[in-house]
Amino acid sequence: MSKDTTMRRRALLKTAGVGLLAATFPMPAIAQSMPELKWRLTSAVPKSLATLYGGGERLAKNVAEATGGRFQIQCFAGGEIVPGLQAFDAVSNGTVECGHTFTSYSIGRDPSFVFGTVLPFGLNPRQTYAWLVQGDGNTLLNDFFQRHNAYAIPAGNTGVQMGGWFRKEIKEAADLSGLKMRIPGLGGQILAKLGVVPQQLAGGDVYPSLERGTLDAAEWSSPIDDEKLGFVRVAKFYHFPGWWDCGTNMSLVVNLDKWRELPAVYKAVLHQASAEVNSWMQSKYDAENPAALRRLIVAGAMLKPFPKDVMEKCFQAAQETYAEIAATNPTFKKFLDSYSAFRRDQYAWWQVAEYSFDTFMIQQRNRL
Amino acid sequence: MSKDTTMRRRALLKTAGVGLLAATFPMPAIAQSMPELKWRLTSAVPKSLATLYGGGERLAKNVAEATGGRFQIQCFAGGEIVPGLQAFDAVSNGTVECGHTFTSYSIGRDPSFVFGTVLPFGLNPRQTYAWLVQGDGNTLLNDFFQRHNAYAIPAGNTGVQMGGWFRKEIKEAADLSGLKMRIPGLGGQILAKLGVVPQQLAGGDVYPSLERGTLDAAEWSSPIDDEKLGFVRVAKFYHFPGWWDCGTNMSLVVNLDKWRELPAVYKAVLHQASAEVNSWMQSKYDAENPAALRRLIVAGAMLKPFPKDVMEKCFQAAQETYAEIAATNPTFKKFLDSYSAFRRDQYAWWQVAEYSFDTFMIQQRNRL
Repeated sequence: MSKDTTMRRRALLKTAGVGLLAATFPMPAIAQSMPELKWRLTSAVPKSLATLYGGGERLAKNVAEATGGRFQIQCFAGGEIVPGLQAFDAVSNGTVECGHTFTSYSIGRDPSFVFGTVLPFGLNPRQTYAWLVQGDGNTLLNDFFQRHNAYAIPAGNTGVQMGGWFRKEIKEAADLSGLKMRIPGLGGQILAKLGVVPQQLAGGDVYPSLERGTLDAAEWSSPIDDEKLGFVRVAKFYHFPGWWDCGTNMSLVVNLDKWRELPAVYKAVLHQASAEVNSWMQSKYDAENPAALRRLIVAGAMLKPFPKDVMEKCFQAAQETYAEIAATNPTFKKFLDSYSAFRRDQYAWWQVAEYSFDTFMIQQRNRL
Repeated sequence: MSKDTTMRRRALLKTAGVGLLAATFPMPAIAQSMPELKWRLTSAVPKSLATLYGGGERLAKNVAEATGGRFQIQCFAGGEIVPGLQAFDAVSNGTVECGHTFTSYSIGRDPSFVFGTVLPFGLNPRQTYAWLVQGDGNTLLNDFFQRHNAYAIPAGNTGVQMGGWFRKEIKEAADLSGLKMRIPGLGGQILAKLGVVPQQLAGGDVYPSLERGTLDAAEWSSPIDDEKLGFVRVAKFYHFPGWWDCGTNMSLVVNLDKWRELPAVYKAVLHQASAEVNSWMQSKYDAENPAALRRLIVAGAMLKPFPKDVMEKCFQAAQETYAEIAATNPTFKKFLDSYSAFRRDQYAWWQVAEYSFDTFMIQQRNRL
């Protein structure tokens, strides 16, 4: 390019810029496409789970900033206006316009709800997002959620979680027999096949039950969240990985009538605000977990991988559980078929560049 | 909550909704915060690299949709108005308002530019994003880019790439000696310590050079991109991992004067649009690479990990290279210190939940 052309281009850009700034704007179009709007968001979690709850607040902040404050979303913690486990229902029935939740909390209605969150022994966090947005994951989900008057967008991931806190070390699959463990959802159903007695307890009840010994084990989240509940003081064995929370997705769930009424601009803003939260939440867990894990080890946590026979028997039990559900639930089967095909492909590729690089770097970690 | 309260709340929400839709809008405020604006974006890559080039187009589409078309960005492929390698310079000197590029292309100016893209044997893709947005990565980068009149936002990642195509299998580090390999940047500098003669060739020149044998090897990208250039027909050995492209970040780079002039709403929109592209690009590579790799194997690719001694000698050469650069370049040293500390922490944590889960799933892949 000649210097003359470059200079002409710059002059042109400058003129154009001034022209544009002084232009008159089509006001009625703006007003229609970006009306002032106030929504309420109910989160599935309490404020103490700062990264999960913070995802909803960040989403609201993103939306406000991208719309100059015209679209405002007020956030409520789980329990403030709706109990955390009922966030999806509150969206579905129109009590609130939207929620930030794990759709798997609605597993009691239909096990298919887990596909909006995570399938035990499923896709890892990055693969989960790929299935949702590039595979047919989110399309299948929204076909399904439509029956429940809701529309979902991925908006957060925790990464692979830990396996939780155990009063006694798990050395073989037989050690699971009769174990009273706080573990909700499909993970609990699968572990029940190995003799675990799954318990449903709210966060605040877990610590005293572990301390008294009425509970033998409890899974919660990853180091930064687990640390807050102080489990290390009453159950030292910290097993991993949390194969039932291996890529746990959080969703922005919007009441479908409210979604349909939304101008196209706001739909786009919600999608992009959620995508930002998705990366932000994962990166926050990634950034904060290393130091939290170190602190937990200093506090006495005994870091232990689940033995191989435990992992393999649980994997087998998971496959059986899915086959049983799919046999009587065609929606679950439809999800499972899509998800399983994607999963087969993903690990075949993951083992090549990603995994071999991680392997080498982990081997070098004392030289880093 | 009583049913009465719920009903009152719903009635209230409905009334509020109608009221808001009928409200009058502060037009001048909207016009000021969201003026009509037309920018040009120059991409570092040709349209044939559909996922990389597509990232820029998706960014522009995101911005247009989130602003109701008031902020328009027109995309140009590398070479259309500015050569691909000069995208950053064109932004810096104001030829265009913004670019979508690998800042490492400016390594000739200062090796510190690599930290905006990837450091060989560095953070993996997810860790890279965590360093950029939760660590001090992007803050350090923008302090640095300020000197070059630019502002950067992460906007895409390729995942860990492949090691490239070799006419002869690399069985030990000695096989690298005298090897003429197309590999730009720091990766080439590091390999030169093992005797590789790095070549800088544009994409279109690589295939004929490999075919004639004037080139022994070439690194490019990951399966979906590599497939398009047909390397498998002239160099069968497909080594991995591409340790020099282990979490390659693409950036939206904005001319700093233009950035500063931008209303706050548009700054927020650019940040969120870029974050969406970041996840989208990674997920697109994740979704498309498995089938591309399968097709390459059918076409005759011999998939080979780099031998351990090659990896270890390259790792050692990388550490030496960084120490040499840091000794005379305080900016590079500042980046390296932040990056290295973050990397140490990341792999210490990564080996626990993430890596142990991936390991188990890869072992089960014939049962998936």
